[in-house]
Amino acid sequence: MGEDIVFPELCTPKIERSGFFILEELMKSDRSTDIDYMKLALRLAVKGAGHTSPNPLVGAIIVKDGKIVGKGYHRRFGGPHAEVYALREAKENARGATLYVNLEPCSHYGKTPPCVDQLIRAGIARVVIANKDPNPLVNGEGIRKLRDAGVEVITGILEEESRTVNRFYFKAVEKGWPYVILKWAQTVDGRIATASGEAFWITGEQARRDVHRLRAQVDAVLVGAGTVLRDDPKLTVRLVRRAKQPWRLVLDGTMRAPATAALFTDEVRNRTVVFTSQQNGPCREKLQQQGCRVVALPPENGGHVNLRDVLSWCRDHQIVSLLVEGGRQVLTEFLRLGLADEVVVYIAPKILGAGVEAIGDLGVERLAHAKQLQDIRWEKIGQDMKLTAKL
Amino acid sequence: MGEDIVFPELCTPKIERSGFFILEELMKSDRSTDIDYMKLALRLAVKGAGHTSPNPLVGAIIVKDGKIVGKGYHRRFGGPHAEVYALREAKENARGATLYVNLEPCSHYGKTPPCVDQLIRAGIARVVIANKDPNPLVNGEGIRKLRDAGVEVITGILEEESRTVNRFYFKAVEKGWPYVILKWAQTVDGRIATASGEAFWITGEQARRDVHRLRAQVDAVLVGAGTVLRDDPKLTVRLVRRAKQPWRLVLDGTMRAPATAALFTDEVRNRTVVFTSQQNGPCREKLQQQGCRVVALPPENGGHVNLRDVLSWCRDHQIVSLLVEGGRQVLTEFLRLGLADEVVVYIAPKILGAGVEAIGDLGVERLAHAKQLQDIRWEKIGQDMKLTAKL
Repeated sequence: MGEDIVFPELCTPKIERSGFFILEELMKSDRSTDIDYMKLALRLAVKGAGHTSPNPLVGAIIVKDGKIVGKGYHRRFGGPHAEVYALREAKENARGATLYVNLEPCSHYGKTPPCVDQLIRAGIARVVIANKDPNPLVNGEGIRKLRDAGVEVITGILEEESRTVNRFYFKAVEKGWPYVILKWAQTVDGRIATASGEAFWITGEQARRDVHRLRAQVDAVLVGAGTVLRDDPKLTVRLVRRAKQPWRLVLDGTMRAPATAALFTDEVRNRTVVFTSQQNGPCREKLQQQGCRVVALPPENGGHVNLRDVLSWCRDHQIVSLLVEGGRQVLTEFLRLGLADEVVVYIAPKILGAGVEAIGDLGVERLAHAKQLQDIRWEKIGQDMKLTAKL
Repeated sequence: MGEDIVFPELCTPKIERSGFFILEELMKSDRSTDIDYMKLALRLAVKGAGHTSPNPLVGAIIVKDGKIVGKGYHRRFGGPHAEVYALREAKENARGATLYVNLEPCSHYGKTPPCVDQLIRAGIARVVIANKDPNPLVNGEGIRKLRDAGVEVITGILEEESRTVNRFYFKAVEKGWPYVILKWAQTVDGRIATASGEAFWITGEQARRDVHRLRAQVDAVLVGAGTVLRDDPKLTVRLVRRAKQPWRLVLDGTMRAPATAALFTDEVRNRTVVFTSQQNGPCREKLQQQGCRVVALPPENGGHVNLRDVLSWCRDHQIVSLLVEGGRQVLTEFLRLGLADEVVVYIAPKILGAGVEAIGDLGVERLAHAKQLQDIRWEKIGQDMKLTAKL
């Protein structure tokens, strides 16, 4: 069912500028360089999107005498690393060859033995790397080991592009915090629902399918209790393929959402986690009986939960990427506290007038202090416009 | 000073689909057809944008034995028609040739003698037309005269595209009412100013230049008194060439705008018209002394002027196109009353949170009743996005 997962966010302007999308043409020419091969490695890497978390996305190419003799990518968490697939395919051709890999090969025993040892044993002569692995267990150690064994190592090829591909991983390892994407769909005039709360459907079918692609790439999806009350969403990946559904997190400080909601009763209700400041009570017990997880957090003003507590919980549960899907209050709070890394906004060519605004008061009083988005990408999806940008 | 006027609105999806932009390629091939030549005629027609009003935009091509032997366009109001320029260039080659023209040639004496007589006299054998002229003085009469004289006439080639090019003219002739474009610049979240009213600058320089191109094509620009009070705008065409500044219309029911505003004191203040419900008073006299025009209209609720009265005044003063530049109250009122034909929205990749919303209450309670825009065109302008669409 559904189509293959793609990784639309790969297409940041930076990568576009660097010619990622003329890759196939480049590969046809005989001017293939380190950059061209690294692009191909990245292209392989993103095939693992949605399956490797909390591991990074890694692709590898082995080239000998101008010919690709091996290739591979990290397919799923716990499975073999990209380099291993490439070595298996290259066999004896690996001797004296060049390996292109977007992340520094590992030097430690994790779920699998260290890749550097296998590369040295196979006789790889040259390794071209995009990013050093920020994981404190690696962090240059893989490169050092390779060089000590006489392997030529080049780093920093398509460094930024590769960082974008692995932005979830880098955020988690460097900041110890999940990468947060805020997503909403609005009319041109910035409304996400009518005054009475009606929100289905603002955008067209293609944009809705794109949301499923987005969900398929993240570890968890998050909404506030108000959204559960009003929209009763499923938040599952349905229109594209994905092996396991993302976690579904609900912020519900005062336990307002009904136990009959889809999130609490459907066939993947064991993937639902409710964050509440209610330490006990019948609602809580009911949800747990139904198979949902309930996490009690210290209450804040008005019984809300603290977003930082929620993100800490995510970190502790290997959730490195989080898609926040609303509503207005939750989106605004993430922005206001500076806890979001990226926004994805779908804009429908409709005008609603009065209604629920996408974003509320951020305490910004001057235009010069408005949140200026970075790495902006505009993309037409059907009749709608999609904006992807970093904060 | 400045660059040539272009006519960006030409680029509606319909015309794009019909291949307008591959014109040059098509012209290079030897498969030129009636459609290809009509595209070229339209391309010539739009060169007159901003100079021919209230006349339409017309381009003409004369083709003989597969070669273009004459071409022309209506350059300015009162000047020769497109056909006349084309005939002058073609000279004797016009005999037995085909004329491509986007609007039916005129059959009546206006500022210039009837084109059909000249075409017949020159021996044109075939005339290909996009639109019949809706002007009651022509309206098929030109076609009839040509056919009576034995000229083959084909109509309806690129009919819709040509109607888009001349949408101001068609609205004015068919509905007796100016074509109204609502334009605003907003942050992604639909804010046109901060809570305190600060509105400079939301979009980047390229979008601001684009606004000047838009102004250069219309007969008049309109704002409410609130915008004059807050922004003190000039509303002139500065960044692109235009012979005459557009009229600057100000809605000021209660004469709130100060007589010292730029619109009332700059070197083109004689192009400023204030619509008010104040029948007399010192403010009014002061503005008139300064050289502005003041039009007294019957008062409505709260001293506002009636938009229909303003549009009637426009019609009576040969203003066939009107660009409404805000603020929120005026934009909302045009939308609410169904008096707008088109919107142009510039969206900056910024998030402001609380502030002045672009559009207020339209009385729409269901999403299904939101104003669904038509003929949608999304266009990237620098970092900003421009939406052009019909209502």
